[in-house]
Amino acid sequence: MTNWTRVDGRFADELRRVSFDRSCSLYAEGSAYVTWGNTQVLCTASVEDKVPPFLRGSGQGWLSAEYSMLPRSTHSRKPRDISKLKLDGRGSEIQRLIGRCLRAAVDLERLGERTIWIDCDVIQADGGTRSASICGAFIALVDALGWLAAQKLIETDRIYTQVAAVSVGKVNGRLLLDLCFEEDRIAQADCNVVMTSAGQFVEIQGTAESGGSFDRQELDDLLNLAEEGLQTLFARQSEVLA
Amino acid sequence: MTNWTRVDGRFADELRRVSFDRSCSLYAEGSAYVTWGNTQVLCTASVEDKVPPFLRGSGQGWLSAEYSMLPRSTHSRKPRDISKLKLDGRGSEIQRLIGRCLRAAVDLERLGERTIWIDCDVIQADGGTRSASICGAFIALVDALGWLAAQKLIETDRIYTQVAAVSVGKVNGRLLLDLCFEEDRIAQADCNVVMTSAGQFVEIQGTAESGGSFDRQELDDLLNLAEEGLQTLFARQSEVLA
Amino acid sequence: MTNWTRVDGRFADELRRVSFDRSCSLYAEGSAYVTWGNTQVLCTASVEDKVPPFLRGSGQGWLSAEYSMLPRSTHSRKPRDISKLKLDGRGSEIQRLIGRCLRAAVDLERLGERTIWIDCDVIQADGGTRSASICGAFIALVDALGWLAAQKLIETDRIYTQVAAVSVGKVNGRLLLDLCFEEDRIAQADCNVVMTSAGQFVEIQGTAESGGSFDRQELDDLLNLAEEGLQTLFARQSEVLA
Amino acid sequence: MTNWTRVDGRFADELRRVSFDRSCSLYAEGSAYVTWGNTQVLCTASVEDKVPPFLRGSGQGWLSAEYSMLPRSTHSRKPRDISKLKLDGRGSEIQRLIGRCLRAAVDLERLGERTIWIDCDVIQADGGTRSASICGAFIALVDALGWLAAQKLIETDRIYTQVAAVSVGKVNGRLLLDLCFEEDRIAQADCNVVMTSAGQFVEIQGTAESGGSFDRQELDDLLNLAEEGLQTLFARQSEVLA
Amino acid sequence: MTNWTRVDGRFADELRRVSFDRSCSLYAEGSAYVTWGNTQVLCTASVEDKVPPFLRGSGQGWLSAEYSMLPRSTHSRKPRDISKLKLDGRGSEIQRLIGRCLRAAVDLERLGERTIWIDCDVIQADGGTRSASICGAFIALVDALGWLAAQKLIETDRIYTQVAAVSVGKVNGRLLLDLCFEEDRIAQADCNVVMTSAGQFVEIQGTAESGGSFDRQELDDLLNLAEEGLQTLFARQSEVLA
Amino acid sequence: MTNWTRVDGRFADELRRVSFDRSCSLYAEGSAYVTWGNTQVLCTASVEDKVPPFLRGSGQGWLSAEYSMLPRSTHSRKPRDISKLKLDGRGSEIQRLIGRCLRAAVDLERLGERTIWIDCDVIQADGGTRSASICGAFIALVDALGWLAAQKLIETDRIYTQVAAVSVGKVNGRLLLDLCFEEDRIAQADCNVVMTSAGQFVEIQGTAESGGSFDRQELDDLLNLAEEGLQTLFARQSEVLA
Repeated sequence: MTNWTRVDGRFADELRRVSFDRSCSLYAEGSAYVTWGNTQVLCTASVEDKVPPFLRGSGQGWLSAEYSMLPRSTHSRKPRDISKLKLDGRGSEIQRLIGRCLRAAVDLERLGERTIWIDCDVIQADGGTRSASICGAFIALVDALGWLAAQKLIETDRIYTQVAAVSVGKVNGRLLLDLCFEEDRIAQADCNVVMTSAGQFVEIQGTAESGGSFDRQELDDLLNLAEEGLQTLFARQSEVLA
Repeated sequence: MTNWTRVDGRFADELRRVSFDRSCSLYAEGSAYVTWGNTQVLCTASVEDKVPPFLRGSGQGWLSAEYSMLPRSTHSRKPRDISKLKLDGRGSEIQRLIGRCLRAAVDLERLGERTIWIDCDVIQADGGTRSASICGAFIALVDALGWLAAQKLIETDRIYTQVAAVSVGKVNGRLLLDLCFEEDRIAQADCNVVMTSAGQFVEIQGTAESGGSFDRQELDDLLNLAEEGLQTLFARQSEVLA
Repeated sequence: MTNWTRVDGRFADELRRVSFDRSCSLYAEGSAYVTWGNTQVLCTASVEDKVPPFLRGSGQGWLSAEYSMLPRSTHSRKPRDISKLKLDGRGSEIQRLIGRCLRAAVDLERLGERTIWIDCDVIQADGGTRSASICGAFIALVDALGWLAAQKLIETDRIYTQVAAVSVGKVNGRLLLDLCFEEDRIAQADCNVVMTSAGQFVEIQGTAESGGSFDRQELDDLLNLAEEGLQTLFARQSEVLA
Repeated sequence: MTNWTRVDGRFADELRRVSFDRSCSLYAEGSAYVTWGNTQVLCTASVEDKVPPFLRGSGQGWLSAEYSMLPRSTHSRKPRDISKLKLDGRGSEIQRLIGRCLRAAVDLERLGERTIWIDCDVIQADGGTRSASICGAFIALVDALGWLAAQKLIETDRIYTQVAAVSVGKVNGRLLLDLCFEEDRIAQADCNVVMTSAGQFVEIQGTAESGGSFDRQELDDLLNLAEEGLQTLFARQSEVLA
Repeated sequence: MTNWTRVDGRFADELRRVSFDRSCSLYAEGSAYVTWGNTQVLCTASVEDKVPPFLRGSGQGWLSAEYSMLPRSTHSRKPRDISKLKLDGRGSEIQRLIGRCLRAAVDLERLGERTIWIDCDVIQADGGTRSASICGAFIALVDALGWLAAQKLIETDRIYTQVAAVSVGKVNGRLLLDLCFEEDRIAQADCNVVMTSAGQFVEIQGTAESGGSFDRQELDDLLNLAEEGLQTLFARQSEVLA
Repeated sequence: MTNWTRVDGRFADELRRVSFDRSCSLYAEGSAYVTWGNTQVLCTASVEDKVPPFLRGSGQGWLSAEYSMLPRSTHSRKPRDISKLKLDGRGSEIQRLIGRCLRAAVDLERLGERTIWIDCDVIQADGGTRSASICGAFIALVDALGWLAAQKLIETDRIYTQVAAVSVGKVNGRLLLDLCFEEDRIAQADCNVVMTSAGQFVEIQGTAESGGSFDRQELDDLLNLAEEGLQTLFARQSEVLA
């Protein structure tokens, strides 16, 4: 590993610089502006006083997530969903992932009959937007729980589990942590790993791409890389929430 | 005017603090992040190498604008257009206004057969988002023209006229410059004025609201207020573009 | 001004022939068929016994307007909105204008918890359809209020203010009242003025077009022209309602 | 049959008063305003210089029909299709019927590679709108063919077959010609018959309704009634086209 | 008729082989898989415990039908409705027909306030899908009524009338029973006949196609052919339901 | 593990009975009807002679997948996507997965400029529909490649890699192969594994559900279970294709 560097000069197991601007929004009950290298995502958590029909009367809450990219968050302008009257397929898949992960992070039974809406809007995209969204949404969620507790709407805001996400992948045969766009574009395999700070998996999605594939050993090595990166991310989140 | 102040302490003819973070986007050919009091709008200008069908073969260019609010840019969460499959009526009206004003700012014949897409995405809304959008979109447009000239795609980037916009209104019977949300909500009249730096009108939209109305004299006074505010805005734009 | 005439032979300050066929509809609570030169618009007012969610329980009523053009009301056939699954942007802007103006014409608090739906359907378009819609919708509205009073659903139908609208514009440098399509197509400026019969503005929308612009003096002159035209329109409305 | 009259005083085999205001539209290549009792339908025929993809290069033309009801053409206001983003099912069925019947009326091979768009917009509905639409659309079609011939775009306008349509039905056990809304609403059977003036069927649609049914003998009697009515309609059309 | 055979060797008055696989679905309250020559349609009947708004509180039930073709049920792949965001016009017409016919088959007043949803999904299409749908949906409906009676939700399942449907047509001047796709494609006339086993018409839809037409005598002969075919279909249905 | 059985009597590492009815469709270039326990999916492969815009002129082919459930393939009726005008989020996620996996199975460069459309329509759902879809779609794909080779459109049909998919999960703390609906509904973790017959991963998606989670060891054990099941599936596919 001595005679090469990554496109942006990082080591194979090096995260980009990640920061969370907590409570950045004037209006949202919870929010975080995530800067992750050149990737920027605004995450907000909004509290709504009702639940979807299937939960009415259950006493239980819900969490729903939406993910969208601003038209010029990318290299070439991406038309808005509304102009095609169709939710972008990739966006739909990502927002379902974010929703599942954040629902795993909160005790919905103790939330009461209300919905937390998580909005992740990508302001600038340079790879890793789903990881950035999940990490930032967690901060926004904790903020919103704090707001609910301050309003005496829930007894305590300690009804969450810390979750974070990171991507790992195989690029030109090398296993790398936290792919930027240039790396992601040519990766043979791409894996998003979402875990709790207790070391349990919440979600793992690994995909062979560009005609590539990966074997059991590589998957194992990728998971090791991911766990390393996640330790850093848990630490950053904890600092911000301290 | 001595025994009262506006909700945020301003004088009747005082603009909020306005700044433009020019070229804020990594990818867009032109961009400006507008901070206007608590209102924040990201404006980008994207160059596309084709024109709408009605202009094909004409040698002339086009400019099209889109305006949208992030779900939690407002006091209560606003569902995304795509979740209703309908473009928001107010948003549609505003983006048509932005498009008309920016088309008036650029010489489309000298642009060549290409389209400039203006995207104005409201990150935070505290009144005046349409004025902020027009003022910021102008900066983004000039940036994009500069990019086109640098790429030798157009001969010169001096094919524009400076435009800016400001709101004025009548609140509790008083005429005010640059309404914030709290003022706008209770205004008897609300007027958006778009002018060129040469003192010509590009657009004027005055509306009676909340059961109010306004007469010729008040319209005249409001236009004076607006012209004052626009001088400041033209100066700010010029500094940023210098 | 002696050596020229307008495309249809009118003087600069001359309205086209305007008539209202009041109560033309067999079913609507209020209606008026407006013939304005070659422009024809069917305006109906329908009473519905409920209000939008944000007004439920308020005791207050609402008024909502829709505007649409029949496919062959224009020179070339205009596809229906439903065939594109999108509300036409221009139509959306116009129906919002009509709604605001007619809401300004009726005392919504005394209307009770019901909605008046205004439908303006353009049968033939030769310029001035938004003015014709507003003027005719006012007649239909008064009819519907009469119906409500006759049904003893409201105490009195005198809960309205008379409103009318007219266009003025600058064509080949000349200021003209009531532009027909041929004039509108080449206008440097186009201004719609909506007033109450008490001389107050309800709405003013002035737009520079086709690379043109207009200054304070011209705006002033245009408003004078508009006020003149509005006097005639108020008189016509009053005759029809007598 | 002596001791009863129909709701509007007609005999069982009596048509309502039908008139066609030919070439009523300023812009359409062909048009007819149909007044059929209280039912009113505006029919236009628009010529477009292209054909659907499946006919490109075939040298053959096409005819496509759209049918829509204005919101207040009916007893209670009917929301526009665009507000639901769905084409009304009944309207869709009717416009398919109109299209089939009018395609049967014109020699598409001799039309050349162009499309005739038939628009039938119901201004007021009192039963029989599909018959009125077909009868009026035929007039509009002939007008448009005349326009094409006058423009030397087709050699002769004699490339059509005369078609007309009428409804018959069974109401309270009696067989009636040309049902009005009141009769249609309670009919046990309802049948629309479309024929050429040469006495051939183009379409027949008979439906049992409201829990009713009809047998072979009744169908036979209804077809006799319909043929009678169609003779009158063919005569009316011929007068108008003379 | 001695020197010709139909494309698939049948006599003019010969039905294809028709079978119903009753109760084929694990979940639906009623179901039938119809095999009709090469045409295959899955029909299910689902019971829902509510009615459309216009029937709430009436004590009466409703029946609603949907019809759709799988993308590759046809010769060339047919894009799904959702990919165009529009219900297929032909499908819309057919599902309205199925709904009317099946509503005629059940006593909605004795059904109670519930809706039976009929779904007809074409797995393979070789002509006659609407007839197959109606015949199979009737079996599914009877199944569902049996389920309702077994659940003691209705007193008896004998609240239906037997209905069946068949197509007849004129191909190369010959009148044929039960057109397959190859025949339907070139038919001069095509007629769908829906009757009760008591010999009453529920619906008849006859259409001239491909520039053809048909006269009274031919219609009479076609109806005779249809009645013959329907006898066979009623017998098949009765065997399956025995 | 001796004193318990699964809900349907299977061992923890036992697949349900899986069969593929190859070439079941009269029209599709490739097809397979998959019966997997009570789950049934119809998979077709359709060849289209064009590629999406981004591949035009590249000489390379494409594969696109769609997945949908018939309304009554499930316990309670699921409304069609078109009735909501929205592609189901879960379906969208699954069809993206199927597309990725099948694209990994075929050498798109050697396919030439054409698209293979994979349609997976769930006739009956009892868990495992995405695995069944991928396994069946692979058979349909091979069929379609055979058709292309027989038509001499490609040189050889040996341009594929064998892929199969299976689900594994953690239910009541036990790790199980091939979850049926009853098991899936209460699983703490659910993992879909897609591999090539050469033992490489194509995709792995593991999700914690119902408030559960899983650790590294459990993931490892689940992957072992999955690899076992996949050996059986590869064998079944090979038999069918022999």
